[in-house]
Amino acid sequence: MSTETELILPEDRYFDRDPAQLEIAQHLYGQVRGLPLICPHGHVDPKVFADADYSFGSPADLLIIPDHYIFRMLYSQGIPLEALGIAPRADAPDADAGAAGNAVETDHRKIWQLFADHYYLFRGTPTGMWLNHELYDVFGVRQRLTSATAQSIYDQIAEKLTQPEFRPRRLYERFNIETLCTTDAATSTLADHQAIRDSGWQGRVLPTFRPDALINLTNPDWAAEMDRLRDVCGRDIADYAEFIVALEERRAHFKAMGAVATDHAAATPFTHELSEREATELFDRALQKELDPGDAERFTAHMLMEMARMSVDDGLVMQLHPGSYRNHNRSLFNRFGTDMGADIPLATEFTRNLQPLLNKYGNNPRFHMVLFMLDESTLGRELAPLAGHYPALRLGPPWWFFDSWNGMKRYRELVSETAGLYNTAGFNDDTRAYPSIPARHDLARRVDANWLADLAVRHLITVDEAE
Amino acid sequence: MSTETELILPEDRYFDRDPAQLEIAQHLYGQVRGLPLICPHGHVDPKVFADADYSFGSPADLLIIPDHYIFRMLYSQGIPLEALGIAPRADAPDADAGAAGNAVETDHRKIWQLFADHYYLFRGTPTGMWLNHELYDVFGVRQRLTSATAQSIYDQIAEKLTQPEFRPRRLYERFNIETLCTTDAATSTLADHQAIRDSGWQGRVLPTFRPDALINLTNPDWAAEMDRLRDVCGRDIADYAEFIVALEERRAHFKAMGAVATDHAAATPFTHELSEREATELFDRALQKELDPGDAERFTAHMLMEMARMSVDDGLVMQLHPGSYRNHNRSLFNRFGTDMGADIPLATEFTRNLQPLLNKYGNNPRFHMVLFMLDESTLGRELAPLAGHYPALRLGPPWWFFDSWNGMKRYRELVSETAGLYNTAGFNDDTRAYPSIPARHDLARRVDANWLADLAVRHLITVDEAE
Amino acid sequence: MSTETELILPEDRYFDRDPAQLEIAQHLYGQVRGLPLICPHGHVDPKVFADADYSFGSPADLLIIPDHYIFRMLYSQGIPLEALGIAPRADAPDADAGAAGNAVETDHRKIWQLFADHYYLFRGTPTGMWLNHELYDVFGVRQRLTSATAQSIYDQIAEKLTQPEFRPRRLYERFNIETLCTTDAATSTLADHQAIRDSGWQGRVLPTFRPDALINLTNPDWAAEMDRLRDVCGRDIADYAEFIVALEERRAHFKAMGAVATDHAAATPFTHELSEREATELFDRALQKELDPGDAERFTAHMLMEMARMSVDDGLVMQLHPGSYRNHNRSLFNRFGTDMGADIPLATEFTRNLQPLLNKYGNNPRFHMVLFMLDESTLGRELAPLAGHYPALRLGPPWWFFDSWNGMKRYRELVSETAGLYNTAGFNDDTRAYPSIPARHDLARRVDANWLADLAVRHLITVDEAE
Repeated sequence: MSTETELILPEDRYFDRDPAQLEIAQHLYGQVRGLPLICPHGHVDPKVFADADYSFGSPADLLIIPDHYIFRMLYSQGIPLEALGIAPRADAPDADAGAAGNAVETDHRKIWQLFADHYYLFRGTPTGMWLNHELYDVFGVRQRLTSATAQSIYDQIAEKLTQPEFRPRRLYERFNIETLCTTDAATSTLADHQAIRDSGWQGRVLPTFRPDALINLTNPDWAAEMDRLRDVCGRDIADYAEFIVALEERRAHFKAMGAVATDHAAATPFTHELSEREATELFDRALQKELDPGDAERFTAHMLMEMARMSVDDGLVMQLHPGSYRNHNRSLFNRFGTDMGADIPLATEFTRNLQPLLNKYGNNPRFHMVLFMLDESTLGRELAPLAGHYPALRLGPPWWFFDSWNGMKRYRELVSETAGLYNTAGFNDDTRAYPSIPARHDLARRVDANWLADLAVRHLITVDEAE
Repeated sequence: MSTETELILPEDRYFDRDPAQLEIAQHLYGQVRGLPLICPHGHVDPKVFADADYSFGSPADLLIIPDHYIFRMLYSQGIPLEALGIAPRADAPDADAGAAGNAVETDHRKIWQLFADHYYLFRGTPTGMWLNHELYDVFGVRQRLTSATAQSIYDQIAEKLTQPEFRPRRLYERFNIETLCTTDAATSTLADHQAIRDSGWQGRVLPTFRPDALINLTNPDWAAEMDRLRDVCGRDIADYAEFIVALEERRAHFKAMGAVATDHAAATPFTHELSEREATELFDRALQKELDPGDAERFTAHMLMEMARMSVDDGLVMQLHPGSYRNHNRSLFNRFGTDMGADIPLATEFTRNLQPLLNKYGNNPRFHMVLFMLDESTLGRELAPLAGHYPALRLGPPWWFFDSWNGMKRYRELVSETAGLYNTAGFNDDTRAYPSIPARHDLARRVDANWLADLAVRHLITVDEAE
Repeated sequence: MSTETELILPEDRYFDRDPAQLEIAQHLYGQVRGLPLICPHGHVDPKVFADADYSFGSPADLLIIPDHYIFRMLYSQGIPLEALGIAPRADAPDADAGAAGNAVETDHRKIWQLFADHYYLFRGTPTGMWLNHELYDVFGVRQRLTSATAQSIYDQIAEKLTQPEFRPRRLYERFNIETLCTTDAATSTLADHQAIRDSGWQGRVLPTFRPDALINLTNPDWAAEMDRLRDVCGRDIADYAEFIVALEERRAHFKAMGAVATDHAAATPFTHELSEREATELFDRALQKELDPGDAERFTAHMLMEMARMSVDDGLVMQLHPGSYRNHNRSLFNRFGTDMGADIPLATEFTRNLQPLLNKYGNNPRFHMVLFMLDESTLGRELAPLAGHYPALRLGPPWWFFDSWNGMKRYRELVSETAGLYNTAGFNDDTRAYPSIPARHDLARRVDANWLADLAVRHLITVDEAE
C-alpha cells in the first residue's frame, strides 16, 4: 500500500477484484495495451505538429489554461477563471456579474499552486485518473500532487518541457500514435496540414471537415464565416446553389489533404429535407439577415441531409455529435467566449428526428454514419436498436462526460445486448489535451478488458471469443 | 475450459462469481428450473398445434427466416434480407433503394451457411444465449456454430426436424409448458384454437384478444379489417355504438374459447375519454375516410378507456405494450412489410398519459392491467411508483430489447425498491420463435435467482425469504 | 444463519462481499457510524418537541397511520386505507369509487395485525430495511414481524411508548441528533419553535421557510393561505409589491427563529423573470380569481427567481424539489386529501428551465442552491454537468423513491465522475417518520462506505483519500 505522498499507478488498477475475472482482464488488456493508438476524432491543434520545434510553454500553459475539463471543476468551487490565467476576450464588457474585476493571473507558478491546492476535487473523476497517469508516465512524477509538492512537480514538468523529447512530434512517436485526426473549420486553408506534409515528417495527422459555423444560422459569426468561405474559394457565393457547390469543393480539398471524415454538432439530431426552392429562399433570408422563426432549425436539419448525400458521393464518414446546449452561462460567455466548461447536455430524441436521414441513406452501402450522444437514456432505447438495424449506422464511443470508467461500463451494458459488439465504432479521445491521449486510450482499454472478462467469467462468451 | 470448437453450457453460467452468492443462486435456481412453463403472452402461431403432424420445415425455416431478432442483426452488417431467404411482399414496388434487385435465396443450406458465417455477431447478446441453449438442449448440438461446422449442424437439426418427437405438440410436452397464450386479431374466428380443442389434445393453448388493427385508425388496412369484423359478426356495423357491441361480442367469444387477457399496442399510452357524441362523430369520419388531425390519437386514447371498461365487466386482464415506432425503415417496409427488425422504441410518458384510465379504473378491484415498456428511464421514475400505488396495476417483465441479462437485472434494481416484489407480473417470453421458449424462461430464472442471491448475501433479505 | 423467526441485523449487512472491499468499507463505516446526525431537511412536526411530555400514541399511530411510504404499498395490494385506520377528510363526498363505504378501523391491534400479515411486501425495499432497523434498535424487537408475532411485538412497542425514554426529546438525544430542520408553511407563526426555545431544552430544532401554498396559484386553498399571510403580518396585502414585502418579512422572521434554508416544490423547475408590471397584473388577476391560461406556471417561474434574489440578500440556502405530480389519484385525493402515496414523478428538464435563474444568480458567491430530482435520467445528463460548473449549485442527495440502496449507489455512479465529490450536499432523511431517522442515516452511511471502498479497492482513489 502506498504511503500518503507517493504517486503510484498499480498495474491492476480499476479492474474488478474477482480473481478469475482479474486474471482474464489482465490477459486481455495485455494483448491490447501496447497496440498503436488510432485517434479518429479529437481537437489537437495541427499547428503543434507543423513546426518541428513547437514548444508547449509552461506546465500551466499545457495542462490548465486551455483545458475546460479542469478549470470548470475549480470554477464550480468558486475559483475565478482569471485566477487560473484565463483572460477575458478582447471585446468583453467591463462590468460582469460574479467574475468581474478580477485581474488575470500571469504568474504560472501561482496558477499551478492554486490547481494543486484543489487537486483533491478530481478524486474519482476521469480527469483525475488521466492526470495521474500523465504525470506518472509522460513526466515521470512520483509524488502525489498536493499543496506541498506543487512547486517541485512544477519544476520537474517545466524542465521536461524544455527538452527536445517533449516536442509534439517526438511525443507523437513516443505515444505510439498511428493516426491522429484533427477537427478543422470548413473554411480552413489547412495550411498547418500542408506544412506537416511538406516537412517530410512521417506522422499521420489528418484533417476533419467541420462546417458547423456555416450551417448553424444562429451563429453570430455566420456572415463573417461566409466571407471566409468566399475567400478560401476565391469567388462570390450569392445563393444556395453556389453555397452547396462551395461546400462540395471544400470537402474535395479536405479529402485530397487526407480527410476521412466530417464532423457535425447540432442542438438536436432533427433532420428534414427541404425542396430546392425552400432551401434557396431560406438561404436568401439568411444572407439578408431576415430569418423567419424556425428557419435556423430547418436549415440545419436540411443541411444534415445534404451532408449525408455528399458523404454517399465522396465516401467521408459522417460523425454527428448532437445534444449539447453550448455556452449555457451567458455572463461567462460574454466575458470569456466559448469552451468555458458551461456546455450542458440536453435530453435528445433520435428515433423520430433521424428518420428522414436514415430512411433516405441508412440502407445505402456507400454511407457510413457514426452517432454520438450526451443522453444515456437514449442508448438502450433508441441508439442500440437503430444501430442494430440500419447498415449505415455505427455508435460512437461514450462522449465527453461519459468518457469515464462508469460511463464506458454503462455504455457497454446498455448497447451490446441489442446492437452486438460489431455495430459500435472504436474508442476516440476527443481531446484538446494532447499529453492525455495515452491515458485516455489506456483507461478505455482497461474498461473493455474488464467488461469482456466479466462476460467470460460468467460464461456469456468464451475467453477465445473475448480475444 | 472448453476447446475452441466445443459447445458447452456450463451449469453455473451467467451467475455472479462470489462463492456465497453463487451457492445461494444455484440453490434458488435449482428450486425453479424444473417448474412448468407458463407463457401468458407470446406470438407462436396456434396453427402449429392445430395439426398434430405439423412440421417446421428446414432449419432455416424454423430458426432464421421468420425471426426478426436474428435477421435484423445480419442486416445491420450489410447482408440483404433476400440473401436470408426473406421474400418481398407480392405488391412490393420493383425499384427500392439499397436492397433492390437482389434475388431471394431459396437454398436453405446457403442461408444457414451465411448465418453461421456471421454467428459471431450474436456474441454476448440474449439471442446468442438463447440460440446456444436451443442448439444444445433442443437439438443436441455439441459443436459451436461456425463457418466450418455449419453444414454438419444443419444436417443434425434437419434430421431431428423429421422425427415425430419434433412435432410442436410433442415439444410442448417436452418443454413442460403448462399454458401458452397466443396473440390473435380481434377479427380472428379462432378456428385453429377450435381445432386444438376438437382434437382432444391436452395442451393448454389459449387465445388473446388483440384489437389494434380496429382501434388504430392510421392502419392502412383499417377498412378491410372493419369488413372482417362485419364478416365474423355476420352483420353490418354502421356506427360507433354497433362497433362497441361488436367488440364486446368478440371479447365474449374469445373468453368462451379460453382467453384470459387482451393485448394492446400504441405509440403512446395516452388515454382520454370522449363523450358518446364525440366518439360517434369521430367514428363516422373514419368510416367516411375524412379524419381530422388528431382524430386517430384521440380515438386510440378513448378506446383504451373502453377496453378497460370492458375488462372490468368481463374480467380479461388488460395488457398494454406502448412505445414502439413500428416500421421505422420505410423503404424496407414498402418492400417487405412489417416485422423486419425496424421497430424502434420511443421515449414514453406514463404519469400524465395514463392518469385518466387509472383514475377511472385503477382503484377498481375487478380491473387488472399489466403494463410493459421500451423506455427504461420510466421504470424507476413512473412505473414503479404507479405500480406501488394503484391496486389494479402490475408491471410486466422486461420487454423485447430489454428481455436480456442486463435488462432484467436493471429492471429488478430499478423497480423492486419502490414497487416491491409483488407488484410485478411473472416472466413472459413474447416470442414467435417456439423452440427458444425454454431458453428464454431459463435465462429469466437464472437472472432472478442471481438477483435474489445477491440480496440474500448482502442480508437485504434472508435466504428463506428469497425462496 | 438466522433461524426463520429471529430478527437479526448483521454487522456487515448490505456491503458487497469482496473481502478487501468489505474490510475497507467496514473501516470507513466505523469512522462515521457514530457521528452525530445532521438533518437539514425533513418533515417531523415541531409540536412533538414543543411539549416535553408528548407521547406518540399506539404503535399504529406512530408507524402506520401517518406514513404514506407504508400504507401505499398495502393499498397497492388491494387493502383499503380505511382498514389501516386512515380516516376520510371531514368534507369527503360520501360515494367514492373503490374505497367507498369502508368503515375506518379504530382497533389499532387489528391495524397492526393487518400490517404484519403483509409485512412480506416490504422485502428488499428501503422501507423494510428501515423498519427492521427501527424495530431492532429503537424498540429492542428480536423477532421477525409476521402474522404469528404481530401481537407480542405490538405489546412490546406499546409498552416502550409509555416510558419516558420514548418521549421525542429523549429520543432526539438518544439518536445523537445535532440539528433537525423542520418544514414550515411561510404563514406559520412558528409557535412550536418558540415553545421549544422557551422551554430551555437544548435540542437544535430549526424551521425551514416553505412558501409553496402562496406561490402556487393552482392551490385550491390559495385565497385562504393569503388570508393567513395577512393575519400573520397583521395588515392587508392588496397587491404584488405588498406580497413581496410580506414574504421578505416572513423570511426575516424565520431567520430570526434559526432558519438556515428555504424549500420549494414545483411540478417543473421552469424559471422565468417577469417585469414588475407583468407580475403586478398577474397577481391582480389571481386576487380577482381571473387567471389566464399559463399564469400559474409563469408566476411560479417568476417567484423562484424572486426567492433566489431574496436568498442572495438574506443568505438562506434555497432548496428546490421539482418533478412530482401530486395527488395523481383524484378519487383518493377527494376522499382522503394529500399525502396518500399517490404522488408520481414526472420527466424533468433542468438545462433549459433553470437557465434564467442560474444565469442571473448561479455565479453569485452569496447564493447557494441545493437541487433535488425524481428523474434519474437527469443526473448524468443535466445535473452533474450543471453542478460541475455553477459555483452556487450543489446537488441534494437522492430523494424519496431514490433514497434506497440502489438509488444511492446509482446516484454516486452517475454524478461523481462529472461533478466530483464536492459538489454534492450531504445526506438528508426527508422524513416524517421520526423513529426511522437513525436507520435512514445508517443506510446512507453504509452506501457511501461501500462505494468509497469499491473505488479504493480498484485503486480509483487511495484509502486515505476515501477517509
